[in-house]
Amino acid sequence: MAEILLQHERAASSPGPERSASNAAPSQPQTAVVGVSGYAGGELARLLLGHPRLAGCAPIFFGRPESEGPSATERLDSVHPQLADAALHRVVPFSWDALQDAGTEVIFFATPHEQSRAWVPEALDRGFRVVDLSGAWRLHHEQHRALYDFIDEGSADAEKVQREAVYGCPELDAEGRIATARLVANPGCYATSALLALAPLLRAGCVDRSAGIVCDAKSGVSGAGKAATAKTHFMYAADNLSAYSVFGHRHTGELIEQLGLHSSEIRFTPHLLPIPRGILSSIYLRLNRPFAPEEVEAIFTEFYQGRRMVRVRAAGVLPQIQHVVRTSFCDLGFALDGDGQRLFVVSCLDNLLKGAAGQAVQNMNLLCGWQEWEGLL
Amino acid sequence: MAEILLQHERAASSPGPERSASNAAPSQPQTAVVGVSGYAGGELARLLLGHPRLAGCAPIFFGRPESEGPSATERLDSVHPQLADAALHRVVPFSWDALQDAGTEVIFFATPHEQSRAWVPEALDRGFRVVDLSGAWRLHHEQHRALYDFIDEGSADAEKVQREAVYGCPELDAEGRIATARLVANPGCYATSALLALAPLLRAGCVDRSAGIVCDAKSGVSGAGKAATAKTHFMYAADNLSAYSVFGHRHTGELIEQLGLHSSEIRFTPHLLPIPRGILSSIYLRLNRPFAPEEVEAIFTEFYQGRRMVRVRAAGVLPQIQHVVRTSFCDLGFALDGDGQRLFVVSCLDNLLKGAAGQAVQNMNLLCGWQEWEGLL
Amino acid sequence: MAEILLQHERAASSPGPERSASNAAPSQPQTAVVGVSGYAGGELARLLLGHPRLAGCAPIFFGRPESEGPSATERLDSVHPQLADAALHRVVPFSWDALQDAGTEVIFFATPHEQSRAWVPEALDRGFRVVDLSGAWRLHHEQHRALYDFIDEGSADAEKVQREAVYGCPELDAEGRIATARLVANPGCYATSALLALAPLLRAGCVDRSAGIVCDAKSGVSGAGKAATAKTHFMYAADNLSAYSVFGHRHTGELIEQLGLHSSEIRFTPHLLPIPRGILSSIYLRLNRPFAPEEVEAIFTEFYQGRRMVRVRAAGVLPQIQHVVRTSFCDLGFALDGDGQRLFVVSCLDNLLKGAAGQAVQNMNLLCGWQEWEGLL
Amino acid sequence: MAEILLQHERAASSPGPERSASNAAPSQPQTAVVGVSGYAGGELARLLLGHPRLAGCAPIFFGRPESEGPSATERLDSVHPQLADAALHRVVPFSWDALQDAGTEVIFFATPHEQSRAWVPEALDRGFRVVDLSGAWRLHHEQHRALYDFIDEGSADAEKVQREAVYGCPELDAEGRIATARLVANPGCYATSALLALAPLLRAGCVDRSAGIVCDAKSGVSGAGKAATAKTHFMYAADNLSAYSVFGHRHTGELIEQLGLHSSEIRFTPHLLPIPRGILSSIYLRLNRPFAPEEVEAIFTEFYQGRRMVRVRAAGVLPQIQHVVRTSFCDLGFALDGDGQRLFVVSCLDNLLKGAAGQAVQNMNLLCGWQEWEGLL
Repeated sequence: MAEILLQHERAASSPGPERSASNAAPSQPQTAVVGVSGYAGGELARLLLGHPRLAGCAPIFFGRPESEGPSATERLDSVHPQLADAALHRVVPFSWDALQDAGTEVIFFATPHEQSRAWVPEALDRGFRVVDLSGAWRLHHEQHRALYDFIDEGSADAEKVQREAVYGCPELDAEGRIATARLVANPGCYATSALLALAPLLRAGCVDRSAGIVCDAKSGVSGAGKAATAKTHFMYAADNLSAYSVFGHRHTGELIEQLGLHSSEIRFTPHLLPIPRGILSSIYLRLNRPFAPEEVEAIFTEFYQGRRMVRVRAAGVLPQIQHVVRTSFCDLGFALDGDGQRLFVVSCLDNLLKGAAGQAVQNMNLLCGWQEWEGLL
Repeated sequence: MAEILLQHERAASSPGPERSASNAAPSQPQTAVVGVSGYAGGELARLLLGHPRLAGCAPIFFGRPESEGPSATERLDSVHPQLADAALHRVVPFSWDALQDAGTEVIFFATPHEQSRAWVPEALDRGFRVVDLSGAWRLHHEQHRALYDFIDEGSADAEKVQREAVYGCPELDAEGRIATARLVANPGCYATSALLALAPLLRAGCVDRSAGIVCDAKSGVSGAGKAATAKTHFMYAADNLSAYSVFGHRHTGELIEQLGLHSSEIRFTPHLLPIPRGILSSIYLRLNRPFAPEEVEAIFTEFYQGRRMVRVRAAGVLPQIQHVVRTSFCDLGFALDGDGQRLFVVSCLDNLLKGAAGQAVQNMNLLCGWQEWEGLL
Repeated sequence: MAEILLQHERAASSPGPERSASNAAPSQPQTAVVGVSGYAGGELARLLLGHPRLAGCAPIFFGRPESEGPSATERLDSVHPQLADAALHRVVPFSWDALQDAGTEVIFFATPHEQSRAWVPEALDRGFRVVDLSGAWRLHHEQHRALYDFIDEGSADAEKVQREAVYGCPELDAEGRIATARLVANPGCYATSALLALAPLLRAGCVDRSAGIVCDAKSGVSGAGKAATAKTHFMYAADNLSAYSVFGHRHTGELIEQLGLHSSEIRFTPHLLPIPRGILSSIYLRLNRPFAPEEVEAIFTEFYQGRRMVRVRAAGVLPQIQHVVRTSFCDLGFALDGDGQRLFVVSCLDNLLKGAAGQAVQNMNLLCGWQEWEGLL
Repeated sequence: MAEILLQHERAASSPGPERSASNAAPSQPQTAVVGVSGYAGGELARLLLGHPRLAGCAPIFFGRPESEGPSATERLDSVHPQLADAALHRVVPFSWDALQDAGTEVIFFATPHEQSRAWVPEALDRGFRVVDLSGAWRLHHEQHRALYDFIDEGSADAEKVQREAVYGCPELDAEGRIATARLVANPGCYATSALLALAPLLRAGCVDRSAGIVCDAKSGVSGAGKAATAKTHFMYAADNLSAYSVFGHRHTGELIEQLGLHSSEIRFTPHLLPIPRGILSSIYLRLNRPFAPEEVEAIFTEFYQGRRMVRVRAAGVLPQIQHVVRTSFCDLGFALDGDGQRLFVVSCLDNLLKGAAGQAVQNMNLLCGWQEWEGLL
């Protein structure tokens, strides 16, 4: 526990122009969720309604901002019937005035990336701090953004916002940049899963990068979003498994940027699992010298010392999707071949929690100067 | 086997104006499927391609007839990759000429009821015999058709076609009307399940109708069709169960008409199961005097003597969905309470086979003067 | 809210010899779970670890008491990896001394009924208050207990314990007997589902009992327990549906006793759903006169006024399993036929929560004089 | 078609000492299945009952040979209710005499490997030809057999049988050894999937073996067999994914032996999918020079020319489990990175069919001198 505080304080004490903002955070800041009707939005609502620091101050829940103007107010339990006490809350049409009048501190955008791309700049202009759950602001290099086809790509305004965006994977944020950010780009679900498995090994310099890294990832259907499509049809997804976006998934750019890899050094392939939620990434790599299992375990446990949202399993114990579903944990486990060099790592998380809403709350906690795990255990 | 032949011959020898048509059926008649791209259409393709009587004469496969004109030719294995040897076949744009030129005998319409309503009259006018898998021509009473909202409701042409339509549940067709029909209205999947369970008991006059019949039915998601909707989304259907269309499902009218019931005598409620296919109907009724289990079993076995597509289980042995999925059987089982009057009947079938394509082939067999089970075992 | 308090106070003020016990409950009573390794035990651990009233006082977690002596201590997260922070807790071999030394107030038995039958009497003798989740002490009439085949059936000791057992369905406990009980028999999962749907209507005297009540219930596989059997094999349960225990399920006795029905007045049939958890009961009955939908809705809403763990849906809105899974709610909805007499009621709950662990915590809350919903929302 | 026949004839005309045996195969040879009660046994029964060459000669169905003597005769439809017309067949206690009296030509052993190890030698001694579906006789190198822990390992008798065993992957059997074998060791399900993907590339000499091959494989639960265990429990397998047997799965030895690889050149990891059946293998490798997609496609299509049970998809079209479930096909597809060297191959099959019973029938077809696909399309 002492270590956790030390580490967090180290991060918190890093200098930054907006640091005072987070210091000034009121004990119960007003929050808002834009796009509460989606799967990640629903999980965000659940987490925020149960967050101990927000006990007296319910978030404002907005539907998705549509160009054609406000839609009607709905009960939150019409949208998410499984939310406890959701009957007391309402989903209201989006309104900047409502945000301003409530003195909102943090806005979560749980919107498609096109909408985040359009709305986040104005949110920043109006002085709100933003956690964006979409892929709109995660990628710093143009070639990686090409897969998103942003209509404002290359504009000076978009570049300015992009430069300010901090990639919000708390366990990888050694300099504590999230705490003072105005815009946190919440990582992709697949990317989180692979990053948390690979960063400790790569930062320890023990990976033979020339041998290539294979990340074979599998995700439940909620990762494909709420839109009814041929691929989210029960008859397509059930009793099936399929690979998709081979050599071209949008999250690959996050891996390359965050891990400092060359694109030829990693192969990432997602698959669609016939389950509602959860990601398991099977990662194959080669260490640059023979290691003992205990050494590998130590690399992980030291890296994640004091980080309660990542659970490192003992050597040879492999996490499963069921271990993490409906939690905000990422579980890591590994097996090392007899040669001490061929390493197999398994990383599991819930794509809607550590892969989306849980990590977003973790980021909010840091923005507000709280412990990163508050409201997540 | 002897009995089977006898029963079939009795049916086949029933007089009928068009009987000669079926007598004239060539040994390998040309068939066609309109709407092969749907789930029932795919099963129909599979059954027809494997039908021993059609070995030398592949069916013509059409996509859905669209008002905006023909779509492009596709390979059948693009549409249904799991079909063995589908690579050899093509799905072609709909064309009356193609049907005529090929000398088509029997057309299957595996189309939405609106399309069947529009196209079947012309098919009959052109002299084709039709098995229609939709709900377009199943109901003889206007109040039951009201749930379908047919745009040609009440027109003289539609009435004329409707009068000619024979309800195609072979096991209930004591007079052998199917064999000589020009238009067979293939029953609804739920209706088939309930009818086969109830007809033997009601025709034997042993049901206390005043006590009411409850049919609690559950179906897999393929019953909802191939369209991607909120209800066919994996996230809605998986790990879930929901009742729907309470007191208002379209198949209820089939039960009332075919069983000669008053609408107040039966309650039918469908539920959506988180499985791809299969229907289980749980039926509760009261017999009009105490029966021994053997008596009830005898009612079923005698009724289905010689009908190989209905399998009657011994008293106390209840069928399950797994027993019938991917078969064209309907399995029946029952349990009788100690009082000898309260009866629980379970009826299981595959909604795409005995509930659709399998029964359609059974009807084709009768149209062609073959044994009803050919190509189905 | 005021109503809720009033209702609870009315219950709490009912006279009872052991009332002082609950008055004397310390602010953070020691609790213990016997049989934490099962599914209900795991949910109980999760709920108790997150219960605000128990924040400073972790429960003692025991494995199942086995006659052959204590098994080894295990980490709770080895048994239930998905429990947040379970790594901090241990599962220890059962020991009366450990219970005594810790000053335990309430013991939960999440054990098979044979074990509960053997151990609960001693727990009471030693002065512990007990919530038993098994079927051991739910049934007051010998003929209903016959299905359990208790080896101590009829013994004076067992009779004495049975007389003291209070059936723990809080919403049906108008006299507040649970609050002062020494032994609470936590209801069966199916029974809870049907009771909460039927009690309001029967107590309002508006059911035509002579017409018979049909309860067609469906449960996820966790209801069958953790033992690996032919019926819990994935290949049996997946893509399947099966009825079982027709006319002879053990929970039927609970319905008859708690609702004051004659056994001929209700038919209850359970089915095994291919989902991990959740129960949906489809209930068919006849009202004894025509009702308006609003009247039926009023019967439910008035009965459950102030009871937050039961959610009554508006007329025509039917709950689904997904609405309640992983919550401790029971959701009720209904549809009324045009005749105003034929009523269809749907009742949904999570068999491991409102059907087991959630209801057990609700009962503990009452034993301790707290609001029944604490730790459950 | 012409090519198919040519290729088959080439294989069939290869010289071999027992060739005369297959030449002498009667037109309707007697077959037998030992262990018909398991999943693969059930599929075998279904295929054999529908096999056109066996139409007049039903197989003999045995339960598993148990040391404690014969069990009772059962109806086949009690064991496999979904088999059409299974009611006509019986499962009988194992008996060498029954085999002999019926003049049995080919025995399928669908038994655990311990039983196959014990019974196959006697079957050969008695002059039967055997297709063994277990892992008993697949591996020629002792170090690979070590994972099976055979109790007769190293005995002269076992060695003699092992030397005679022909590995039964027809598409890889260029010399036609299966046609004249006395004992065919039917390949493992995972092994078949990986072998069919890798053999064409390795035999064409275009793989950079030093870069290592990764085979990330996923299988449905039927692969784990019919025994009820903690891992086949619905609650374990459903809504889950887990890796297992990392660096130590028994099928790895088959890959090494059949592909002529060094153990360090391939990493094979199986995962348990929450589906009943089907395997998808995701294979990552590096080609030893840049290739055009058409070149890769040509390698596959040429290798499988005339082999109808392997379907090669066009470049960029990836097979899915649903495409092959309940077929005896193996579907292959691939994607090639822009560099022309990093290759991703997907191989899908049904573990009970091409991975077991379907391949066993394919082998029987070759033993009998028939086309390999007869009874499988």
